[in-house]
Formats: sequence, C-alpha cells, structure tokens
Amino acid sequence: TKDGELPPPPPVVHYHLNNLTTSIDPIARRETILILSPLARFYQEYWDNLLELSYPHDLISLGFIIPKGREGNSATTALQAQIAKTQSGPIKKRFASITILRQDTEMQTSQAESERHKMANQKARRAAMSKARNSLLFTTLGPTTSWVLWMDADIIETPPSLIQDLAAHDKPIIVPNCFQRYFNKEKSAQDVRPYDYNSWIDSVTAQSLASSMDKDDILLEGYAEMATYRSLMTYMYDEANPELEREIELDGVGGTVLLVKAEVHRDGAMFPPFAFYHLIETEGFAKMAKRLGWSSWGLPNYLVFHYNE
Amino acid sequence: TKDGELPPPPPVVHYHLNNLTTSIDPIARRETILILSPLARFYQEYWDNLLELSYPHDLISLGFIIPKGREGNSATTALQAQIAKTQSGPIKKRFASITILRQDTEMQTSQAESERHKMANQKARRAAMSKARNSLLFTTLGPTTSWVLWMDADIIETPPSLIQDLAAHDKPIIVPNCFQRYFNKEKSAQDVRPYDYNSWIDSVTAQSLASSMDKDDILLEGYAEMATYRSLMTYMYDEANPELEREIELDGVGGTVLLVKAEVHRDGAMFPPFAFYHLIETEGFAKMAKRLGWSSWGLPNYLVFHYNE
Ligand SMILES: Nc1nc2c(ncn2[C@@H]2O[C@H](COP(=O)(O)OP(=O)(O)O)[C@@H](O)[C@H]2O)c(=O)[nH]1
Ligand SMILES: Nc1nc2c(ncn2[C@@H]2O[C@H](COP(=O)(O)OP(=O)(O)O)[C@@H](O)[C@H]2O)c(=O)[nH]1
Ligand SMILES: [Mn+2]
Ligand SMILES: [Mn+2]
Repeated sequence: TKDGELPPPPPVVHYHLNNLTTSIDPIARRETILILSPLARFYQEYWDNLLELSYPHDLISLGFIIPKGREGNSATTALQAQIAKTQSGPIKKRFASITILRQDTEMQTSQAESERHKMANQKARRAAMSKARNSLLFTTLGPTTSWVLWMDADIIETPPSLIQDLAAHDKPIIVPNCFQRYFNKEKSAQDVRPYDYNSWIDSVTAQSLASSMDKDDILLEGYAEMATYRSLMTYMYDEANPELEREIELDGVGGTVLLVKAEVHRDGAMFPPFAFYHLIETEGFAKMAKRLGWSSWGLPNYLVFHYNE
Repeated sequence: TKDGELPPPPPVVHYHLNNLTTSIDPIARRETILILSPLARFYQEYWDNLLELSYPHDLISLGFIIPKGREGNSATTALQAQIAKTQSGPIKKRFASITILRQDTEMQTSQAESERHKMANQKARRAAMSKARNSLLFTTLGPTTSWVLWMDADIIETPPSLIQDLAAHDKPIIVPNCFQRYFNKEKSAQDVRPYDYNSWIDSVTAQSLASSMDKDDILLEGYAEMATYRSLMTYMYDEANPELEREIELDGVGGTVLLVKAEVHRDGAMFPPFAFYHLIETEGFAKMAKRLGWSSWGLPNYLVFHYNE
C-alpha cells in the first residue's frame, strides 16, 4: 500500500467445527479433503492415478513433504512440472490448492526396497517417517478440512471412486488392501500379491511379546524373526469371491492408503515417532486413535496397488 | 468468474522448513508467532495485556477456541467486539490474522474455580482441555509459523517483552512462573501467590505412585490426597533476589503461558487427552516432547499473572 494509505483490516475468520461434517455422501455436502503424501521419489503413474480420482477436484487439496538432498530435489522438480501442467490444464482436473513442504532433514536410509525393509533399519526409518507425516499433517490441516486421505507417493493404481467408496463406510479410520502387481514366473503371467503388512488384528502372541519388551522396543510386522501371529488383512483378500464391501475391525493400520476423518487428527491422533504401546508410525496411530475413542477398519477385498521397483 | 472465463490457476505454495528459524533474536529475523488461547470466558484485561505485547503485531497471528453453548456465545461476542476495534485501530496494534474456532462440544464442568479444581473432575476436564488445545493447534499451525505461544484467556498481566524475553533463552519449550494477585488479609495489603502447579521437576515418590497405578490413571499436582513431593517451580520464586534469567529444567509444564518452538509440535508433540505415562494435557505434552528429544525449561523468577475470580 502507498504511504499514509490504510491497508484493509486483516482477515478474522470464524469457523464452527460442528458445521464440518464427514458424511457418507461427501460430494453432496461438498466436504473438503486433504490428500497427504510423503514423497521421496516421483512416479508418473502416481500422479496419473491421482488425476483420475472422480471426487470433485475443487474439493481436494494436496500436501507433499519431500526430504532434503539431491533425490528430494529431483523429485520436487518432477512433481512441480506435473503440477504446473495440471493446474493450467482443464478446470475440472485442477486441485483446489497444493502445498509442498521440504524437510530440513535427508532420508534415513537408501531407498532400495531391500535396504529399507531390513529389520535393523526399521525403528529409525519409521521414526523419521512419523515425523515427516506429523510435520505435513500439523502444517496443512486447516479449519475447513473434513477428511484426510493419506496416500503414499508409490501408490499407482486405485479405483477412481476411491474417496467416495471409502467414505461411504462412515468409519473414523479406514484402509483398503494394498497389493502389488508382479510377474509370476511359475504361472508365466501377471499376478498380484500382498504388499502392506501393517493392517492387522492383534494376537495374544504379539501382546505377550510386547509385555516382555523394553519400553522403547517396537513390534514389527512381516519379519520371520518376530512371529506375531497377528491376522494380517492383506492375506484376507478373497480372490474367489471378492465382496468389495466387506469390512473388518483392525488394531493396526498401514499408511499406503488411509482415510481419516479430520476430527480424529484434531483430537490429537498423530503418528508416534516413539514406541507407543510398542507400536510406531501408522500402527501406533491406530492405537492412539483407539485411546481417543476412534476405531479403525479395513476392506480386505478393496485393492489398491503399490509400485513394483 | 464469468461463464467461459478461465479462473486463475490455484496457488501452489512451496515451503522450506529449514528456512523457518527459531532464534534468540526473532524480531530481527522476522519470525512469526502464533498465540493460541483456549477461551471459555472473555476478560478485558487479557485483551488489553495482549495489545501491549511489544513483539511486532504484524508477526503475530492469534487463534482462539471457544466452547459451544450460551457462555461460549457471549465470550465470542465480547472477543469479536474487541477484535473489530483493534483491527480497525492504529496499524501498529493490528495483528497479522485471527482465527476463531467454535467447538462442537460444551464445557465439561461449571467454570467456578472451586468446582473445576475438584480432583474428581480433573481427568474429564483435562481430557476435554487437551482435545480443545489439539484442535486449535492442528487447525491453525501453518507452514510459516516459527513459534507457538500458548496463553490462557485468564492471563491478565505479563511483561510487554514476554515473547522476546522467553525466546532469548533459546529453549524448545519454556514457561514463566504463573502467579496470582490477591488481597492478603493478614498483611492488609495487595500481595502475590503461586497459581500454576503444573510446572515441576519429577520426584521418586511420584514415579513410584505412577508405577502402582492402573494404566488409565493419572497423577495430579496440587492435591493433598496425592502427595507427589515433586519440586514445584511456582514455589521457587525468590522474592528477595528475583534473578529474572534463572532457568531450571522441568519434567512437567503448565499451559497458562508456554512458549514452544513450532518444530516441537510439528514433530508430533500434542496434548495427550489420555494417560500418557500417567500424565495428561500440558504435563503429558512435556513428557511426549521429551520422548521426541525436546527438553522443557522454566523461569521461576519471571512472573505472569492469572486472573483472580
Ligand atoms: N518426506 C519423506 N518421504 C519419504 C521418506 N522416505 C520415504 N518416503 C515416502 O514415504 C512413503 C512410504 O515410504 P516407502 O519407502 O515407500 O515405504 P514402504 O513402501 O513401506 O517400504 C513413500 O511415498 C515414500 O516416497 C522420507 O525420508 N521423507
Ligand atoms: N475452548 C475451551 N476453553 C476452555 C474450556 N474450559 C476452560 N477453557 C479455557 O482454557 C483455559 C484454562 O482453563 P481454566 O479453567 O482457566 O484452567 P485453570 O486456571 O487451570 O483452572 C482458560 O483460558 C479457559 O478460559 C473449554 O471447555 N473449552
Ligand atoms: Mn512404498
Ligand atoms: Mn485459568
């Protein structure tokens, strides 16, 4: 403003949290959703899948958190190129707003799947992932957000109606079943296989393992060295009769695709970067949400697909 | 926009978290601060004190959360009247932005001090306060916030240089000593006395009390029925020689006035509405921050004052 001229009074915004619904028909009520993706590598298939989501894009905001360093820089460049294209393309495809956060830390371990899945690397890696998720969440959740959809940046295939389909179950927290496409050499054909082991129903074995652990130790899923005998949702896919609507209650959830009512996060549910009941990250999140009175659910027959390196 | 006219592309905002400093000279670096107040009643003295803060107001955003119901409505009306006056008054006094959230729940208990301090009411009341604080925090923390100052709406007197003074200690979490003015009948004179018991150094007694508790039980401070023998900061005020700069490390903190580096919250530190190591709300926050690697500090001789009903 020019010298001596009064700037307009800054905005005062007044929000009623009880006007923020999370309903089974979120499009009709024009409920806004924030899609959050921690992103270490950019995959074109991820972006293409995002663009195909049939939820009205003017109700979708996107948030990314990208690590510092060379790999993070090139992921950012690739992401920004696609954003520029989408946001200047057809109006119907444009998203309401986009936030990119750059972390002040680099990635914990090399990004090769074999390396990042090593048991010894898990605690530090998942603590770092938790902090990245929390930074993204605390920074981007706004007063008008009804839903938060966590979607990893290597999820490359979901039904276009993903958001509507998950929301229709009217659950505080809900996860589809994350699979991976691969070439089955025995069958000499394309096939699918379970990918995400973090969605599970607890077991007595896991509980008793936990009770003998040091307070900072964490239970991990998917390691032969630590047989938990939990019921893993990913193995409950019923290929013969994939009833899409089937829902099961869960004690731990994965974060590859995870729909959360924003009020669950607002109550304080975050991703513990420390051992919380011997759980960490998204599994600890489900436990924390439970302590806040919110339940977690899974859809064993509703598949989404993870990239295959 | 008119039919057929293209709206401008929506904003894409890119933030580098490592450019967000929290330094001992926050004014020189133009670091932004978010002042957050849960507010059940409006006190003019609170607002007047806020207006006198000498930190540049264009670097200050304000956030309020106010309960539903009749009392909340009248507090909102009173607050809005003062906001309207301030934001249309002298430019130097105007704040950068203001957000008012209305909760979807009413207050837990009557607001009389005698009633709200009853031990039986503490767990539910402090769980509700935790959720209110979390909602406010998750909703208002933005990508450009360097500092968060928690200030209860019944804090009516602080030094004008409060923010600069606390920031100068360069601590992740820091609290001044919250006192109350009252009329001392014995002395027949105005006097001061300790008010906030939630800033303390832990004791062996409290630890062993905790270890025999049910997992959902919480330790409370300031109740004769539960003698913790913790060292309460509020009793460490040295009237004879009030060395303002003196700092002590704390295990629990109160929230009446509490300065937090935003990165502590971004890492995931929130106000547990459930028993977290048998602690809740602001005391649980200090414990959670500790688990995330952040320490808490107190200034026993730096006084701020709570309203006296
Ligand atoms: N911001 C950020 N994102 C990360 C980091 N490490 C991995 N990611 C992303 O977080 C998501 C999950 O990580 P990923 O390594 O795929 O986990 P996995 O599939 O369970 O082995 C993916 O979208 C990654 O691109 C990190 O250090 N920082
Ligand atoms: N939003 C909200 N604020 C509250 C509620 N109860 C109290 N407050 C506010 O929270 C702060 C702390 O509460 P107060 O009752 O003063 O706590 P005490 O001084 O420790 O007894 C004050 O600013 C109150 O106005 C509530 O239910 N919701
Ligand atoms: Mn992955
Ligand atoms: Mn008070």
